[in-house]
Amino acid sequence: MRISVIGGGSSYTPELLKGLKDIKDDIDLKEICLYDINPEKLRTIEEFSRRYLKGELKVVTEKVFEDCVKDSSYVLFQFRPGGLEGRLKDETIPLKYGLIGQETTGIGGFAMAMRVFPIVEDYINRIEKVSRAFVVNFTNPSGHVTEFALNYLGYEKFVGLCNIPINLLQAAADMFEVNLEDVFLKYYGLNHLTFLERVYIKSKDVTEEVLEKIKYSPANIGSSFPSSLIETLNLLPSSYLKYYLFERSTVKNLKNSKPRAQIVMEVEKELFEKYKFASEIPPELSKRGGSMYSTAAAMLIRDIHLSSGSIHIVNTKNSGAVSNIPDDYVMEVPSIAKGGKVFPISIGEADPFALGFIHNIKMFERLTIEAYLKRSRKLALKALLLHPLGPDYDFAEDLLNDLIEVHGFDLK
Amino acid sequence: MRISVIGGGSSYTPELLKGLKDIKDDIDLKEICLYDINPEKLRTIEEFSRRYLKGELKVVTEKVFEDCVKDSSYVLFQFRPGGLEGRLKDETIPLKYGLIGQETTGIGGFAMAMRVFPIVEDYINRIEKVSRAFVVNFTNPSGHVTEFALNYLGYEKFVGLCNIPINLLQAAADMFEVNLEDVFLKYYGLNHLTFLERVYIKSKDVTEEVLEKIKYSPANIGSSFPSSLIETLNLLPSSYLKYYLFERSTVKNLKNSKPRAQIVMEVEKELFEKYKFASEIPPELSKRGGSMYSTAAAMLIRDIHLSSGSIHIVNTKNSGAVSNIPDDYVMEVPSIAKGGKVFPISIGEADPFALGFIHNIKMFERLTIEAYLKRSRKLALKALLLHPLGPDYDFAEDLLNDLIEVHGFDLK
Amino acid sequence: MRISVIGGGSSYTPELLKGLKDIKDDIDLKEICLYDINPEKLRTIEEFSRRYLKGELKVVTEKVFEDCVKDSSYVLFQFRPGGLEGRLKDETIPLKYGLIGQETTGIGGFAMAMRVFPIVEDYINRIEKVSRAFVVNFTNPSGHVTEFALNYLGYEKFVGLCNIPINLLQAAADMFEVNLEDVFLKYYGLNHLTFLERVYIKSKDVTEEVLEKIKYSPANIGSSFPSSLIETLNLLPSSYLKYYLFERSTVKNLKNSKPRAQIVMEVEKELFEKYKFASEIPPELSKRGGSMYSTAAAMLIRDIHLSSGSIHIVNTKNSGAVSNIPDDYVMEVPSIAKGGKVFPISIGEADPFALGFIHNIKMFERLTIEAYLKRSRKLALKALLLHPLGPDYDFAEDLLNDLIEVHGFDLK
Amino acid sequence: MRISVIGGGSSYTPELLKGLKDIKDDIDLKEICLYDINPEKLRTIEEFSRRYLKGELKVVTEKVFEDCVKDSSYVLFQFRPGGLEGRLKDETIPLKYGLIGQETTGIGGFAMAMRVFPIVEDYINRIEKVSRAFVVNFTNPSGHVTEFALNYLGYEKFVGLCNIPINLLQAAADMFEVNLEDVFLKYYGLNHLTFLERVYIKSKDVTEEVLEKIKYSPANIGSSFPSSLIETLNLLPSSYLKYYLFERSTVKNLKNSKPRAQIVMEVEKELFEKYKFASEIPPELSKRGGSMYSTAAAMLIRDIHLSSGSIHIVNTKNSGAVSNIPDDYVMEVPSIAKGGKVFPISIGEADPFALGFIHNIKMFERLTIEAYLKRSRKLALKALLLHPLGPDYDFAEDLLNDLIEVHGFDLK
Repeated sequence: MRISVIGGGSSYTPELLKGLKDIKDDIDLKEICLYDINPEKLRTIEEFSRRYLKGELKVVTEKVFEDCVKDSSYVLFQFRPGGLEGRLKDETIPLKYGLIGQETTGIGGFAMAMRVFPIVEDYINRIEKVSRAFVVNFTNPSGHVTEFALNYLGYEKFVGLCNIPINLLQAAADMFEVNLEDVFLKYYGLNHLTFLERVYIKSKDVTEEVLEKIKYSPANIGSSFPSSLIETLNLLPSSYLKYYLFERSTVKNLKNSKPRAQIVMEVEKELFEKYKFASEIPPELSKRGGSMYSTAAAMLIRDIHLSSGSIHIVNTKNSGAVSNIPDDYVMEVPSIAKGGKVFPISIGEADPFALGFIHNIKMFERLTIEAYLKRSRKLALKALLLHPLGPDYDFAEDLLNDLIEVHGFDLK
Repeated sequence: MRISVIGGGSSYTPELLKGLKDIKDDIDLKEICLYDINPEKLRTIEEFSRRYLKGELKVVTEKVFEDCVKDSSYVLFQFRPGGLEGRLKDETIPLKYGLIGQETTGIGGFAMAMRVFPIVEDYINRIEKVSRAFVVNFTNPSGHVTEFALNYLGYEKFVGLCNIPINLLQAAADMFEVNLEDVFLKYYGLNHLTFLERVYIKSKDVTEEVLEKIKYSPANIGSSFPSSLIETLNLLPSSYLKYYLFERSTVKNLKNSKPRAQIVMEVEKELFEKYKFASEIPPELSKRGGSMYSTAAAMLIRDIHLSSGSIHIVNTKNSGAVSNIPDDYVMEVPSIAKGGKVFPISIGEADPFALGFIHNIKMFERLTIEAYLKRSRKLALKALLLHPLGPDYDFAEDLLNDLIEVHGFDLK
Repeated sequence: MRISVIGGGSSYTPELLKGLKDIKDDIDLKEICLYDINPEKLRTIEEFSRRYLKGELKVVTEKVFEDCVKDSSYVLFQFRPGGLEGRLKDETIPLKYGLIGQETTGIGGFAMAMRVFPIVEDYINRIEKVSRAFVVNFTNPSGHVTEFALNYLGYEKFVGLCNIPINLLQAAADMFEVNLEDVFLKYYGLNHLTFLERVYIKSKDVTEEVLEKIKYSPANIGSSFPSSLIETLNLLPSSYLKYYLFERSTVKNLKNSKPRAQIVMEVEKELFEKYKFASEIPPELSKRGGSMYSTAAAMLIRDIHLSSGSIHIVNTKNSGAVSNIPDDYVMEVPSIAKGGKVFPISIGEADPFALGFIHNIKMFERLTIEAYLKRSRKLALKALLLHPLGPDYDFAEDLLNDLIEVHGFDLK
Repeated sequence: MRISVIGGGSSYTPELLKGLKDIKDDIDLKEICLYDINPEKLRTIEEFSRRYLKGELKVVTEKVFEDCVKDSSYVLFQFRPGGLEGRLKDETIPLKYGLIGQETTGIGGFAMAMRVFPIVEDYINRIEKVSRAFVVNFTNPSGHVTEFALNYLGYEKFVGLCNIPINLLQAAADMFEVNLEDVFLKYYGLNHLTFLERVYIKSKDVTEEVLEKIKYSPANIGSSFPSSLIETLNLLPSSYLKYYLFERSTVKNLKNSKPRAQIVMEVEKELFEKYKFASEIPPELSKRGGSMYSTAAAMLIRDIHLSSGSIHIVNTKNSGAVSNIPDDYVMEVPSIAKGGKVFPISIGEADPFALGFIHNIKMFERLTIEAYLKRSRKLALKALLLHPLGPDYDFAEDLLNDLIEVHGFDLK
């Protein structure tokens, strides 16, 4: 049994290795193959891995993508096309127009998606030729990429993951002092646009209790929103909703702060210095973000492999999970790992507030994908115009031109 | 056969009388009853009517609503609760927060709806008791009101009308020098949030020709948008989309202009001066807006009454008209007048750009209706937060408080 | 403007010519091309046509299919693969097993469909190459063939017709002494499996009146059912429902009667003798069945061509016409002729009794089509086993073998 | 924690007690209350229970229904209105008309349902008043009763159970020598009208292997069908499908056999003789049918109570579980026990063959329920006419009259 990690030279890889080491006996894992287009980072991580794993798990690297993914049962996507330099542009260009610059939401998410799609398309085509591996995707925008893979590339063994759900589950488990598997959430939406509607601990619906508990400290459930907002909505929205619900003040804050990309670059630099010599995961990794990322990935791979019947919140086709959402929308919903796949669980209707956002952004996602597939400037503009965080028409062309210029998108 | 006009003291009534006069023989119309809560205006219009109609059609007024609507086959709603003073507030309060103030869209539409719902609810309850008249609604926000009447009050003989579709049909007919009935449109959306996707003249799909013809003059099809925008979208959106697609510049313009409400007040004043003595419709009425309003209403009533099989674009339950929109959404779609009702015509799928807006605003509509029905401040806030033209959370409460203060909404 | 008639050597053609002659000025029809694989019959009909039309309309014949359909705006399918000899087998083989033998329903319908599909597939492929003509199909089983053409061949300009709806409309018009266009029906189902639920005359719902009127004479509405059955169902089912609702007595009657195919053979023989010399349509044609066939076809072609907005009941994709039936089911529903196409009209929900039959037989239709496309004996058996008038498993193989033997179906 | 058993005087109760005893510690079960309208049987079972349980679990009986269900967390329905005498009539009356007489399918199922509905309605109304217990239903026709409870009575805490799925799961587990929880089935349909489409053992789809294994012995998977039939359908249908697929031979067999009701009466008599003195479950109980019944019930109650996340195949609203079936159809589908409820798992599309049957019989179910609710003779006839195993119209009234006479149905 072999697992490939695409973007294996990432600073996240060490944490992932830790996760995979933990499940290696459960799934009889023999080898991990790392692949990255940056040979230097890849070498640093490879060497760190050897020191860190101390022979408990074999780690190899390959120069040719196919050589890495073939014979792999699972392939992890965690690459970042354009790197942090690209991210920096996505964060700063929109701000010039008074719009939010953020990696996965709004215009930044659009630009990120446009950079990611050609790579995902290429990789999936190549995977199809040499294996039928199950792809677990962490590459952002994770839900958007999964929409692309499932509905446009038609690669069925593809699931999109994010570390937000597992952190939410953990927060709920901590709040009631139970195990992770004792928590069940009515939770749904698009990745980074999700809504928690009900919380069950064992056989009890504790939603009212949760609302009470977070009255004075929403952070208890991992939320940065004022509790009055949560109470108003009667929903706990993803923290990414702040870009929609606090747009103006966020723009102001972003304008006055160092871009997140720059901070991360510094963290990364520091981390790679450590990776060169360390044989344990450096504590600085926690600054990088992505908490519990490796746990989510490793547990999902283990449970799909064992068909354990465990529940994971993943990005997959809705398929009736939320009854008033079309079956083909890729959604982030609770699913059960069985028969070597994930099957969504039917959790009922979505709230109208959530529906309004979900439909809107799903249509943005699809227009963006069609813009990429048809290399269409017009469709790209159309996508941006639909997005609530997108530009007005009178400066939309300028904005798009800026993005095309810095990222070199192939749009006519 | 009797027709009632609720809001009969409106400055629009004279034009409507003209329309009804034109069809009186077709439908064997004997009498028109005018009802209004403003006795002075009502008297002016009544007296004008007598002079204008010269006995061709009997016009009466009633002080008690029930006395007017009973024995009526059709009831026209064209009232405006809160009057132009209310409208002025809806146009100016949002601007204080840098948001668009407009009568039917965004926050203004919200406030208008909240003023209209109690009146519509009351009137429908009273109509149900004394007649089963067919209600033709022009009261704004017309689609929102129809959503309320059909899906929440369950009054089935209710259709929402707007003068935009007939003007669009007329523009297309003029463009190709054909009659109105030779034009067929793939046109859909929520009232004031509609999209024209295809134009047929007789058996020919002339969409490409239309796009070509409006390249240098979008006004040919009645649009105020740059033709590049129409080309980008591959759709002709309602002119009300400008509030979404040119939000910033519109806010700026609005801030620098006299509010439309004030202009209309002046027009109205002038008009009522004329109505006092005129026996013909004064040309100044054209400044009032609402062109072809009476034609749309009269033709619809005639065709429903005759079950002529003619096509009208009206607000009614989608019922499969647009295949990727739920059946129960009230939509503005082509429908056929048969069997004393309107039956929507199946026109295929909606474009993703249109879908994004339609779903979003429909959910806003429903949250607003629920806020009214439950007298819920939280739901009102939730509705405003969902709207793309609505406030951020950090000033949403202040904005809502302002609206509650000036309009006296009953929200807890 | 040219119209082609495939199966032009049919005894029906003269009536069709009459219909087309009546509309020739409306649609500026210049020429009719007849095509048939039976050269003898074709010659007889061609010669009759010349005598009958007296130069008012040009009639030509072609030996090569493509030469006939090219340059045609409309192509009429009215061929019968296997001829009346094939029909005789379809009527007699099932009876050996105690099952109903009927041309379009049950096993007979299955066998007919299996003979028709390869021809339709071939013709459509050839039409696509030389023209984009609108196909009006009368070839039985007409709804099943339309399901095949629209959902499996993907040829969109295809509409299935039957003479039953127009006869029903005529019966309702006669009953209330109004014109055909004053009648509107809530009527739906699969061809030969339809249900009339409501009747409107002008703006009035006269369903209760109709039920009252047919109490003592269901024939008034063209039904052969006891009025107690109609009352029980609260629906007027197609007369073909008798095969389901009176299965045993029908089998008995069929066993004791001369097969309809034989009767028709005799009628046909007689007719062709007349056609050889006649210059008017012989009254014997009325014995052939298919009353008002030509009216239905000619009016539909005229109204599609003129995009008149007239309503026709045709076989087309449901597309929301009946709200509790999937959009893609080909159904016989009221549709409006506009923009050179037919658009279904939304008529509401189907009755549960009707739904039970419609779903069941639609699935039979699809299994049959898949059996043909995959040349699969197993799928053919599966289709027969699903049909309520089909065989039990213990003699299903024998029955299928008999059909394969006499018709030479290519099934493995 | 208390569980009530309605129909507690049934011969099945001892097996159920065994099942509940096994889980008593898991769910902290303190007391079982038995209720039955037959005091004699109830006493026998109660006394047997005391001897059998030896104080490990408290068993009480109540004369008043409310006294039994109040304070109960779970209520089991296993009553049989009309008893075996009623069943005997259901089995013999249809045979007089050459139709299948069977307890849960066709006419017998109709009669059974009509006897059961008033009792279920009454019991549910009374449960709602004194508790909000979760009802686990075994009363036949179990799916039909669940359709009634969920969609017509609106009692949400209701789940329909049958012993067939657990036997199928066990057969698959035995075939591959794994545990029950290692098996996952794509299995769906209406109770006693189900279809097994795919079998997964752990992460592997073993469907082809299963088909191969049962080639010479379908009994391996618990099927009584010839393997050629299973191969033809590419589905394993419930054994109850034999009534549809082998109708004639089954009628013949039934005519020549002692009615099952009579055999069961004899078994029951024998069993009750044993229960009077035994203190262990007599081996004769296995002749009674209902194998693994108690396991299914006890495991379901345990897993709902513990919200274990285990999968159970139960009758519940489809809710997207099968994507091409409406959400509100009560279906027998895999569901997960979480949050004190069952949530269906999304398993994809149903096969067209299965769909044809499912839709047809669901409409029969709904017409039957409406016939009961409206006390309508016409709707009862309509239901019978729709059923593929029902009567032709010419003898449907006689048949219905016979049923009304013997069972005293209140139909007008």
